[in-house]
Amino acid sequence: MSTVHQATWGLLRALGVRKVFGNPGSTEMPFLADFPDDIDYVLGLHEGSVVGMADVYAQLTGEPTLVNLHTAVGLGNAMGAIINAASAHSPLVITAGQQVRATLTMQPLLANPDPTMLPRPAVKWAFEPPRAQDVPAALARAFRYAALPPAGPVFVSLPMDDFEQPAEADTTELLAARRLTGRSVPAPVELNALAKRLAAARNPVLVVGAGLDAAPGGFEAGVALAERQNLPVWLAPNASRVGFPTDHAHFRGSLPAGIAWLSESLAGHDLILVAGAPVFQYYPYAPGSYLGPGAELVAITDDPDAAARAPLGDALVADPALALQGLLELLPQTNRSAPLALTPLKIPPAVDTLTASQVYDIVGPLFGHDGIVVTESMNGAAAMWDRMKFRRSGSFFFCAAGGLGFAVPGAVGAQLARPARPVLAVSGDGGAQYGIQGLYTAASRRLPVTFLVLVNREYGILKGFGDYLTTTGVPGLDLDYLDYEALAKAYGIPAVRTGRADELAVAVKEAFAAANGPHMIIVDVAPGVPLGG
Amino acid sequence: MSTVHQATWGLLRALGVRKVFGNPGSTEMPFLADFPDDIDYVLGLHEGSVVGMADVYAQLTGEPTLVNLHTAVGLGNAMGAIINAASAHSPLVITAGQQVRATLTMQPLLANPDPTMLPRPAVKWAFEPPRAQDVPAALARAFRYAALPPAGPVFVSLPMDDFEQPAEADTTELLAARRLTGRSVPAPVELNALAKRLAAARNPVLVVGAGLDAAPGGFEAGVALAERQNLPVWLAPNASRVGFPTDHAHFRGSLPAGIAWLSESLAGHDLILVAGAPVFQYYPYAPGSYLGPGAELVAITDDPDAAARAPLGDALVADPALALQGLLELLPQTNRSAPLALTPLKIPPAVDTLTASQVYDIVGPLFGHDGIVVTESMNGAAAMWDRMKFRRSGSFFFCAAGGLGFAVPGAVGAQLARPARPVLAVSGDGGAQYGIQGLYTAASRRLPVTFLVLVNREYGILKGFGDYLTTTGVPGLDLDYLDYEALAKAYGIPAVRTGRADELAVAVKEAFAAANGPHMIIVDVAPGVPLGG
Repeated sequence: MSTVHQATWGLLRALGVRKVFGNPGSTEMPFLADFPDDIDYVLGLHEGSVVGMADVYAQLTGEPTLVNLHTAVGLGNAMGAIINAASAHSPLVITAGQQVRATLTMQPLLANPDPTMLPRPAVKWAFEPPRAQDVPAALARAFRYAALPPAGPVFVSLPMDDFEQPAEADTTELLAARRLTGRSVPAPVELNALAKRLAAARNPVLVVGAGLDAAPGGFEAGVALAERQNLPVWLAPNASRVGFPTDHAHFRGSLPAGIAWLSESLAGHDLILVAGAPVFQYYPYAPGSYLGPGAELVAITDDPDAAARAPLGDALVADPALALQGLLELLPQTNRSAPLALTPLKIPPAVDTLTASQVYDIVGPLFGHDGIVVTESMNGAAAMWDRMKFRRSGSFFFCAAGGLGFAVPGAVGAQLARPARPVLAVSGDGGAQYGIQGLYTAASRRLPVTFLVLVNREYGILKGFGDYLTTTGVPGLDLDYLDYEALAKAYGIPAVRTGRADELAVAVKEAFAAANGPHMIIVDVAPGVPLGG
Repeated sequence: MSTVHQATWGLLRALGVRKVFGNPGSTEMPFLADFPDDIDYVLGLHEGSVVGMADVYAQLTGEPTLVNLHTAVGLGNAMGAIINAASAHSPLVITAGQQVRATLTMQPLLANPDPTMLPRPAVKWAFEPPRAQDVPAALARAFRYAALPPAGPVFVSLPMDDFEQPAEADTTELLAARRLTGRSVPAPVELNALAKRLAAARNPVLVVGAGLDAAPGGFEAGVALAERQNLPVWLAPNASRVGFPTDHAHFRGSLPAGIAWLSESLAGHDLILVAGAPVFQYYPYAPGSYLGPGAELVAITDDPDAAARAPLGDALVADPALALQGLLELLPQTNRSAPLALTPLKIPPAVDTLTASQVYDIVGPLFGHDGIVVTESMNGAAAMWDRMKFRRSGSFFFCAAGGLGFAVPGAVGAQLARPARPVLAVSGDGGAQYGIQGLYTAASRRLPVTFLVLVNREYGILKGFGDYLTTTGVPGLDLDYLDYEALAKAYGIPAVRTGRADELAVAVKEAFAAANGPHMIIVDVAPGVPLGG
């Protein structure tokens, strides 16, 4: 008779698991024992980094991705990263070990005393199988549910003594053979009505979000619809992915995130079509009209909660890519005139110290057509959007819930998912601290990630917020010098530090050309991060 | 009229707040604005380190300690450390910013969508004040409740727009003047009965835990009772604090944590008196008799949950120090003979590489009479208990829930609480990674902490567990070399790396003698961490 261990790994293999992202503890050892040769265990040295890697890996592959953490304390360490993953609708199957069932009632050391409560509210579902024999079915349920729209993390607690128990009659074949889909199109009557509204609109606009990039074919459908209907296209505020090529003549930029600022940016449009974004990820609080005079808004999202909570507009809950493809079948070429390409942003030249904007001015042209950026930095954002061109799906990832510690491990996950594409991580000297252990995995696996660290010795974005909020006298916004050359060395990563444009260009070229491991480029930049800029 | 900001800080000052441990984000800026000159903001660069520092600070001072974190993602990052703090009964008042109230219904970026659920089950109480005007009273309630037994973390969510609102009639004086106590003595009839059982016992034994060290006067009461009744004294398994002087002739050591091993260690005793510990923090699962033949157990704890969940024995829920003091009043000097001091552990000499046991053999005699150890390493534990002598209350801190990332920031918190005492942090090269950002705060404040890192390039304790569990083929247990000299340099801390006994002794002497800032001592030690040894 087979054991729960054998049944579990048989199921995981049948479900197509190729990688497990983890940080082990004693309570995980029975699960991890006799680890299969054909599955890759990706070790991270802190649970935040483990989940950060898995998050972007899952977003890029679109596959439910298995994470294994250490009981309560390890799961706790990961909660910030899980909140980012939840906001990104990342299909993570998070597991953690649990103490021996016979000991749980007296709560020994390393118990997870309330395992289904701890990961909430960041997971869609949290479960501890009632019996050892239910572990495979619970994991099958977790894999299916994580992937069904709206995708997101789920959690399964795995008591450590379950794996030596005898399995029940094998249902692996039945469980693995199931084909589930939640991708749906709007009802024809609704899609027809939307097509008519769009055709009849005088000056419509498309706003695309992370969900369009995540939906297969969404990126291409957005381009086709924008060209068919001559729509200008904005990126939703604080979008965690880019659902439209930013070198396209129709691209207008990333919408500002204040309520008043956003509606001013869309002034004059009579119909705002939002695809794959909540309406909206506002912040900071800049009160004003949600919608300009005479404007209407229709959002397409696969997230019922996002649809319900929006303070304005209609919504179709469906797959945004399929919905746009449906619209394309219904709409002819418009006779509206096409939007003109924007004039490139003027970036003032360096005075003494480089600005983040100048960094993007230098890095952008070197970035190529195939690169992936994983960023948590808001410094020089306007220049980033202008100079860095994201030309295909899966090219840009931002911490979806605003949680720092995302870029360093996220870039590692991106490189694991897309070994052939250049991957650039962008962090500030403050932000990189929250996920610094991700460097280890990049170095250990010789992944050719380029880690760009913009050093301004402050939490610059907070000072920018402080100007907006008119707060003064806030402590903790200035940082002592953090020696990132030494940090890179600690993890075995070659690093270059510079404050000069020419040296930066050389370093970036070399790092992008390298295929034999990670590089860090440390740039001393001027302080001051203007809000939204 | 005063604002909620003014009323809040007036209350916090009246409650005696002298330090705030934090990592700021935009949602915290209105709370932190115009930060008072007479309160110290202790910046940590990762929320796990912030809570790790505050945890040991609160344990040493016994005062409710204010922590301020960044909304959902920042609170999430801290959850592992909060679980440690909860297990340690550390009176933390954890706060996090929240988005503007007017925006919460549509869930903007950086909202904490379910703030009272996120920190559970690691907090005793979680609350978001229903109105801005309730913030001061909510914080007053939090400070009181965190400190009342059983002490532990509480959480208050602070919407960022609350602080500019007008305060209600000032109740600061009423709130600050309240004097609450939860310290209690057992009912006299119960205490008399226990005294009679103890006096009548043939061969009683005392087991002390963290709670006895935390209770004022507990350390001294334990010594007095042990001497009055000639009790041998054990430390409870996996105790996070030491409630008895380990150089006392009556001290037997730290109890092993397996069920069978523990009862074997206490074989022959007819009455086991436990003070300030749960019964017990068992792990790993080593089934067997909970209690030897003819033995009885009585526990004194201020934690009703710990009393209820114990699988054996009687319990008195009361302050363990006051209970022992009560017993002392009832008990005469015994005529049992006194336990003899143990023979010192034999530590085999070094062959090629130092062992962790040899490290303690060297460090122990240099440690002095007043030092504090904050540790997360199990490597060489038997030698640590034998060679390091903890002679007074508040001398030893271990991660109470087993969560790594504790020792580095915890030692910083210990040094902040006890500036005049030498503080030694002990981590492995694996464990130090989880709280590495704590080095920043030590360096920035020039705190004279000695960080001892035992480098064996493995998760050695897991290999030890694997031997016990007979698991093989577990991935992720070996570590690439982590260059801690470079890590120390990154944060501005001088470091020495050695594998030699004589150099280690010199480095330890110098670090202990230094008063002008932190030092790191990196010791290459042999792999292999025997379980329980």
